[in-house]
Amino acid sequence: MKKPIALVTRIDRADEQAWVAILARLLPESEIVHFHEMDDAQRDAAEIAIVANPDPGHVAALPNLKWIHSLWAGVERLVAELGQAAPPIVRLEDPELARVMAEAILAWTYYLHRDMPAYRRQQAAAIWRQHPYRRPGDLTVGILGMGLLGKAAAGKLTAAGFRVTGWARSPQQIDGVDMVSAESGLDRLLRTSDIVVSLLPLTSETRGLLDARRLSSMKTGARLINFSRGPIIVDVDLIAALDAGHIAHAVLDVFDAEPLPPTSPYWRHDSVTVLPHISAPTDRNTAAVIVADNIKRYYATGALPAAIDIKRGY
Amino acid sequence: MKKPIALVTRIDRADEQAWVAILARLLPESEIVHFHEMDDAQRDAAEIAIVANPDPGHVAALPNLKWIHSLWAGVERLVAELGQAAPPIVRLEDPELARVMAEAILAWTYYLHRDMPAYRRQQAAAIWRQHPYRRPGDLTVGILGMGLLGKAAAGKLTAAGFRVTGWARSPQQIDGVDMVSAESGLDRLLRTSDIVVSLLPLTSETRGLLDARRLSSMKTGARLINFSRGPIIVDVDLIAALDAGHIAHAVLDVFDAEPLPPTSPYWRHDSVTVLPHISAPTDRNTAAVIVADNIKRYYATGALPAAIDIKRGY
Repeated sequence: MKKPIALVTRIDRADEQAWVAILARLLPESEIVHFHEMDDAQRDAAEIAIVANPDPGHVAALPNLKWIHSLWAGVERLVAELGQAAPPIVRLEDPELARVMAEAILAWTYYLHRDMPAYRRQQAAAIWRQHPYRRPGDLTVGILGMGLLGKAAAGKLTAAGFRVTGWARSPQQIDGVDMVSAESGLDRLLRTSDIVVSLLPLTSETRGLLDARRLSSMKTGARLINFSRGPIIVDVDLIAALDAGHIAHAVLDVFDAEPLPPTSPYWRHDSVTVLPHISAPTDRNTAAVIVADNIKRYYATGALPAAIDIKRGY
Repeated sequence: MKKPIALVTRIDRADEQAWVAILARLLPESEIVHFHEMDDAQRDAAEIAIVANPDPGHVAALPNLKWIHSLWAGVERLVAELGQAAPPIVRLEDPELARVMAEAILAWTYYLHRDMPAYRRQQAAAIWRQHPYRRPGDLTVGILGMGLLGKAAAGKLTAAGFRVTGWARSPQQIDGVDMVSAESGLDRLLRTSDIVVSLLPLTSETRGLLDARRLSSMKTGARLINFSRGPIIVDVDLIAALDAGHIAHAVLDVFDAEPLPPTSPYWRHDSVTVLPHISAPTDRNTAAVIVADNIKRYYATGALPAAIDIKRGY
């Protein structure tokens, strides 16, 4: 019997089928079965679950699970719902995802650097007014979170000539990047950056990190990009800082609730660009190869890929 | 007596003074004098005029002019107003200008590639909808005009992963760029490009180049960026192509008349991004050094910098 691997997802049905098809092709010696279609013997035999927004009850109904592979990079909900007793969780670390995210950060950094929101407002009022050009080397972009995505973004931004400061959990060195850590490093980054980019995972420590106090320590007229998780920012505090003109503009791709409810003030705020969580969509082709390689290596050697630190939350 | 050099400009008064100050500092053995402030002896003695939008009558009132240095890259008005009998005209070829222009082309290519206009329209209607992501390698950017600026733009775009086709007056080879020339090459570029960028100088041959016929040969849903000169495009033909949905969006930084008149339909067109001629402003610091070096070399050796081909127009 082929070894069954459970796909445990609550996503679009067509997406589920596409994942089953591509994973089945890449893992011919396994049987990729969606949880709903597994019989009891398959559920008993499954050592691996591949998950995207799974029902935690479904994961718990797989008694012999050795580990879980997430199809997403962000796993905070998984950690919260499965709890500390969960089997090891491997999150997607896809260099192609990092490339697309770094590209998004460069694209929306240019959007702010080149004053695109201001020119859009001027166009609406038929106003012809030139804003002074600043060289990228005269701007500092501060990146919160210097994992795979943060490093890729820093590389793109420094290659484009921007000065980059990076805030990491623990002190580290990255060529061409002014690396800081701890609370004092965060404070320095916020005080000196013209554009602050959040790539932080959502954990108990990062939830609400950008609150009134920290937003007020940012430079007057600074801009903010949030491409990681909505709850990193305290929404009412950000809106107050935007209304006061202290923060000049925010580009938000992620929100506490998604889709962003129609009643959210962000939709209508002139200093906010709302994006529907599109900064770095998973590329099924590259992601499936990474997942399949991790699984093949496990079956060949018994070695699990690097799992997340469940206490740390990422 | 210091050799007088005439500054012949019709620009903002503060700009004029700033040019006089920086050029005087870089050319201590010359006397930089604005035309209006020259006495007859100085006008007689001036061998060089530094110009930006000059009154042609003022240029004609300098009887012993050997050559003219433009502070701008675009010289079509100078050529038209001074005529074929003008002294040699040297236009500004500033690598920093090329860098800024290439950066602008990458920035607004990302603007289109990342569907920023569509997300802005969605935000106005509180619509949460994700558009599929396409890798840069699946898009072709066609650059019209492969001089200093076009080459710099092609380098930035290929480094970012985009496929690039370049149209030049005469056949040439550039690494990593699909180079085409002549009418057949233009046709191929228009038929195959997802984004077409104009960097063409305005000449009798390029005026009205992008007319109804050529716009209709572009791919359905293609986008257009004009960062060179307004009259390259036939406005009524572009608006018809946008209204028909054949061209999905146009980013226009240059216009037949600037500032763009408040009555222009471009201001209010949902598929047009109007920019107030900001893609690549002259950097006075780098430009003044280039102008001063050209002048110093002329005084030291008698050699004129490469002048434009007055018949060709650039």
